Amino acid sequence: METETKKQLTLDTVYKANYVLKQVVRPTDVIYAPKLKPGTELYLKTENLQITGSFKVRGAYYKMSQLTDAEKSKGVVACSAGNHAQGVALAAQKNGIKAIICLPDGAPISKVEATRSYGAEIRLVEGVYDDAYQEALRLRDEEGYTFIHPFNDPEVIAGQGTIALELGEQVPDMDVVIVPIGGGGLISGMAYTLKNLNPKVKVIGVQASGAPSMLNSIHDSHIEKLDSVFTIADGIAVKEPGSLTYELCAQYVDEIVTVTDDEISAAILALMEQHKLVTEGAGAVGVAAVMFDKVDLAGKKAVCLLSGGNIDVTILSRVIARGLLMSGRSCQLTIELVDKPGQLVAVSKLIADQGGNVTSVHHEHTNEGSDVNGCYLRLTLETRNWAHIEQIRKALTDAGFKIL
Amino acid sequence: METETKKQLTLDTVYKANYVLKQVVRPTDVIYAPKLKPGTELYLKTENLQITGSFKVRGAYYKMSQLTDAEKSKGVVACSAGNHAQGVALAAQKNGIKAIICLPDGAPISKVEATRSYGAEIRLVEGVYDDAYQEALRLRDEEGYTFIHPFNDPEVIAGQGTIALELGEQVPDMDVVIVPIGGGGLISGMAYTLKNLNPKVKVIGVQASGAPSMLNSIHDSHIEKLDSVFTIADGIAVKEPGSLTYELCAQYVDEIVTVTDDEISAAILALMEQHKLVTEGAGAVGVAAVMFDKVDLAGKKAVCLLSGGNIDVTILSRVIARGLLMSGRSCQLTIELVDKPGQLVAVSKLIADQGGNVTSVHHEHTNEGSDVNGCYLRLTLETRNWAHIEQIRKALTDAGFKIL
Repeated sequence: METETKKQLTLDTVYKANYVLKQVVRPTDVIYAPKLKPGTELYLKTENLQITGSFKVRGAYYKMSQLTDAEKSKGVVACSAGNHAQGVALAAQKNGIKAIICLPDGAPISKVEATRSYGAEIRLVEGVYDDAYQEALRLRDEEGYTFIHPFNDPEVIAGQGTIALELGEQVPDMDVVIVPIGGGGLISGMAYTLKNLNPKVKVIGVQASGAPSMLNSIHDSHIEKLDSVFTIADGIAVKEPGSLTYELCAQYVDEIVTVTDDEISAAILALMEQHKLVTEGAGAVGVAAVMFDKVDLAGKKAVCLLSGGNIDVTILSRVIARGLLMSGRSCQLTIELVDKPGQLVAVSKLIADQGGNVTSVHHEHTNEGSDVNGCYLRLTLETRNWAHIEQIRKALTDAGFKIL
Repeated sequence: METETKKQLTLDTVYKANYVLKQVVRPTDVIYAPKLKPGTELYLKTENLQITGSFKVRGAYYKMSQLTDAEKSKGVVACSAGNHAQGVALAAQKNGIKAIICLPDGAPISKVEATRSYGAEIRLVEGVYDDAYQEALRLRDEEGYTFIHPFNDPEVIAGQGTIALELGEQVPDMDVVIVPIGGGGLISGMAYTLKNLNPKVKVIGVQASGAPSMLNSIHDSHIEKLDSVFTIADGIAVKEPGSLTYELCAQYVDEIVTVTDDEISAAILALMEQHKLVTEGAGAVGVAAVMFDKVDLAGKKAVCLLSGGNIDVTILSRVIARGLLMSGRSCQLTIELVDKPGQLVAVSKLIADQGGNVTSVHHEHTNEGSDVNGCYLRLTLETRNWAHIEQIRKALTDAGFKIL
């Protein structure tokens, strides 16, 4: 057909996307995770192990495979500092299409480099995300590039929906699927597909509590734009749902819940420790919702979609550090000492005798708040658990040291 | 058959183990990893995603499934602080067998708890590993428990060999397989199976340079015991190969190479960043060998076996920190300041202007080596790369600050 009708999301499109995507995406594994939530038969769909480290390549690749020859020969433009950028860049490379990715000039270098490594042209735009977005639209309108929207496009949504087809083969008798929501493309595709194939499957969306744009919009029955978003789950820090994803979520998603950054951090740590999987904030929100009882899954067979794993390791370090502090496996102590010889030795020995491992020492000789002969010792310790910390504190206190 | 002949490793045993293990182990995924070593068609066999977080459950489970009813009803004993302990504990639980795990009393609590969580009885033995081992042998000799050796047992080796059968299905045309060596059970099973099925497949072993017991033994043509071992790859820190694994490695392994702790750290970081996979030190040695050109794989189709992912997150934090320092993504600067107001502000502003992110500050007012009016400022920064660090150093130097 030469004259194309306005594209629509249909089950046929999802099946077609599934056929097309077999050329490029991995059918990611499903991993049984019985310990994350005892009492629930929980599975993890590992799209963090997808090529490019996220599901985004599915929608981007399918969308670009469907462009006309004229559109393909001109090229595409997208605006993203994250997973969508890498998905578009890889899809362009595989399809032999030129891709320009517009980014705000303050974007993290690691993400810029990852996108560049797939062969995309990077255009750093002065300003913030909205400025980069305007430049992308300008390239579309004035120079004729096809704009690849990160979520509000029926073909992109169909691409993400292919995950539901895979899940249907992998966990055919699932009761519940738990899916992150940013702009809503992923959950729209999955909910549309699942509900059309098996209306009994419950689809639950999860947003960061610092970016509840879809939740608010559905609650108030019209699209709302947040003034600002704040969450470590940058992949779902979206201010406003799309018109299409809003409609699809309103129709097909059963429930939307939110999780805090601390809950997300705990989920990231649990996935690393228990399942050896690295997830980014957005990728871990489903597990966070399960771990912290935001959804009732008792006796259910549930699947958490791990949407991506592209987390900066510096942030991962901080998440680990916070998780260790929160679980009693590290602690910080400030001890007031009399400034005389042998005090540091005495404290060190007491801690070593209790099996604590000192990882940093900061010794301050003067401090307005302390006695003129006093000083402060700030220690960071590796500990076993809360009881162990208590045991160390007690040993120090019993020996006459004052812990602040 | 009531009277059993002395057990031997045969291909039949490996196939039988494969049949038995289908009840309990995951057929772990193989992931294509084209960027870890450009020019090599590299795949990762993800036994870090195996239940219990390591391949060890294969050998332990198969071994225990083959015990006589009398042996099963009495129970088993093992000595390990690591993956073997968890493998034995889970296998015992699944087979309904009592398991006692002997551990030195200084073993990390996290590992003790993981083993206990599978239902094993933990016996903490005063002393070091050898003391715990002696207690395990005493339980075998005096109380009649079956001792489950971590590697020097034909049934345990057959269990590990099942990985080779899976690989034969997943990457049938592989040229080379790269496998970690500790005691040698894993590589013995895999090399025996692969060479018997396809002698053209090359099998390369990797040891930590701080624990090269198999390498030394094969080199000198007799089993040698190291006085000590030192490596972050605790899973392969073995002082002495087994008699059986030594013979099998001598016959079937093509080559053994070693990697340093820094190389292992870099591999752990690369697997996290590029493939979203958490590996322990032992699990990453194969990738370390590939990344640092210990083996020639140009144009080859190669598989790296990721043997496990049970790394303590506190150690993982240190690996990340070290990896960031080594790749120019963090740096520490010590600056000598004249002790007058505004110096800290000036330095902070210069660094911020260059896009550096200060994560820790240590300001010392007195120091023997410095001028009586001077002081030291020690900073830790998040940086983009080596060029960025150079740029920050230059900006500070140009402004007259002295960097030590």
